Amino acid sequence: MTVSDAELRAMARARELGGTVLGTTSPNPAVGAVVLAADGTVVGEGATQPPGGPHAEVRALTQAGDRARGGTAVVTLEPCAHTGRTGPCADALLAAGIARVVVAVPEPTELAGGGAERLRAAGVDVVVGVEQEAAERGALAGWLTGVREQRPYVVWKVAATLDGRVAAADGSSRWITGPEARAEVHRIRAGCDAVVVGSGTALADDPQLTVRDADGRDAARQPLRVVVDRRDRLPATARVLDGAAPTYVSRASTPAELLAELFARDVRRVLLEGGPTLAAAFLRDGLVDEAVVHLAPKLLGAGPSLVGDLGISGIGSALSFSVAGLTPLGGDVQIRLHPTRHTGGGTRTGGDGTDGGS
Amino acid sequence: MTVSDAELRAMARARELGGTVLGTTSPNPAVGAVVLAADGTVVGEGATQPPGGPHAEVRALTQAGDRARGGTAVVTLEPCAHTGRTGPCADALLAAGIARVVVAVPEPTELAGGGAERLRAAGVDVVVGVEQEAAERGALAGWLTGVREQRPYVVWKVAATLDGRVAAADGSSRWITGPEARAEVHRIRAGCDAVVVGSGTALADDPQLTVRDADGRDAARQPLRVVVDRRDRLPATARVLDGAAPTYVSRASTPAELLAELFARDVRRVLLEGGPTLAAAFLRDGLVDEAVVHLAPKLLGAGPSLVGDLGISGIGSALSFSVAGLTPLGGDVQIRLHPTRHTGGGTRTGGDGTDGGS
Repeated sequence: MTVSDAELRAMARARELGGTVLGTTSPNPAVGAVVLAADGTVVGEGATQPPGGPHAEVRALTQAGDRARGGTAVVTLEPCAHTGRTGPCADALLAAGIARVVVAVPEPTELAGGGAERLRAAGVDVVVGVEQEAAERGALAGWLTGVREQRPYVVWKVAATLDGRVAAADGSSRWITGPEARAEVHRIRAGCDAVVVGSGTALADDPQLTVRDADGRDAARQPLRVVVDRRDRLPATARVLDGAAPTYVSRASTPAELLAELFARDVRRVLLEGGPTLAAAFLRDGLVDEAVVHLAPKLLGAGPSLVGDLGISGIGSALSFSVAGLTPLGGDVQIRLHPTRHTGGGTRTGGDGTDGGS
Repeated sequence: MTVSDAELRAMARARELGGTVLGTTSPNPAVGAVVLAADGTVVGEGATQPPGGPHAEVRALTQAGDRARGGTAVVTLEPCAHTGRTGPCADALLAAGIARVVVAVPEPTELAGGGAERLRAAGVDVVVGVEQEAAERGALAGWLTGVREQRPYVVWKVAATLDGRVAAADGSSRWITGPEARAEVHRIRAGCDAVVVGSGTALADDPQLTVRDADGRDAARQPLRVVVDRRDRLPATARVLDGAAPTYVSRASTPAELLAELFARDVRRVLLEGGPTLAAAFLRDGLVDEAVVHLAPKLLGAGPSLVGDLGISGIGSALSFSVAGLTPLGGDVQIRLHPTRHTGGGTRTGGDGTDGGS
């Protein structure tokens, strides 16, 4: 598999382009595409448009126009070969005269598969599997988790002090982190299809859970606000019911049940912002795919911990993660993590876990 | 104040040189010095030798020999003008024919002061205050704290999980962090004059508290091992009493009293490795100058927190730090911090705090 430096740069850019449309494409994948002319210069860029709109390749080809002829298309996901709400991307690439296609992730569904085959049959040079892991961990993660596990991808976000407190002893928690970290939370929300809290957090903090821009204005597109409220504790006056964005109140008794409900609503990427009880329920059930911890360089010495009881008694049974990113964020620190071991101790007892407090 | 790039590079190296002898010079300052020949090339390097041995400037001048004539000496601390166990460094610089001296930190004691003046009187060009803060925060911090506050500088080191646990629910804590982080602890210990724990930690973990090299062998020089044991709980069989390094058992009832005892024993840099109770006592009294947190990407959900009660009830009263360093360390994360606000809540009640558990 020989890939040029220009193609690798284009692939990195294609991953980036996919990331820019995260939160707007579900249930479709957030794909990025770059078209290089025959001489290797970038002549088109595109990313998946909202359902019903053009796919990434088509956007990039449109931008490239005639300059695509004899050129190369670099795409994060194998071009589809089927006609859904839009025509097959493989045909669009052929029609544009593309000579070579470089793909990160092979299409995992039978329905849309066969794109590489169709292109090769038409004489196009196709390379599949280029920097596949980076693409799978990036903007495609939500969609791929949906295909493979029929559930949304779960990002758990939590802000805590150095001693792992999410609030002080008196319950006060505004603000643990600084403005840069809080702005980052809005960017992370914008890339998700749904934001989930337990009724405990909804009652304690009364968050609005909308995506606001730097000026504090609500963004045009809002993720679904989800409150897990098995015991009907959410008051009608809760800000999450203010109509500023769609809201779904769930009576799911387990994290898996909640994720199934959200998957059926085309949610592919969930931001879990609930309190320690809800987070513990997801972690115990192995349903956290990525964690984003915003650590404030502060000490409280008392107050609720960032995660509730995990049923773990010995150090050898600790839930383990690998550090995927370590970044200063204003005066705070952002740590991005992927689980390396999902084994909580014991088994879950009943469904109280999803009805979590803060 | 005009300083050349070569002199700034030499100053950075001088700070580094001071750091290499940390833990071996007390009660003297860990100074670093670099001698540049008249053409700007480095011709000598030195750092303070153990008490009674030559100072940094003299070491660097000896290495430089005749090439020092007409050159520049770059030193982290103003050369002394008095005769203690060694002769005045100012005179040594004059004898070597040094034409210019670049200094970071002015000598703060009257006893040793006057070096710059004596040099200037002899026609030497002297610049003082070059990157002073970096030098003060580095290897000179312990000695400067001693001069200014008549107490040792305190570095608090703690290893914890993401949720701030220093042990699991069953008390097990070996190992929270990986081998790289644990090796770093031995390097940090080697740079301190004393390592302090409470009797609680001594009882729970029975640590040896020695400095071991990469092969697990005890280093030649060992910091003083200190156990705060007001209630005579330490058994004679404790490993900290094994004779592998000097040990001091203190009955101090407050952190300040302990630090005064250690200061009188020429200790200028203390590593606080005690448990949550001892750490909380130092933090409440504003006696932590630097914190080194080794964070393991793990979750326990239960177990003792990294710091005990600080008497803080609201988020607005949290102890605050600024992040001075953020480094991956094997699979773990090292965060170095300096306090920005020392105000714990309430006042300390009695002296139980120093007798801390783990």
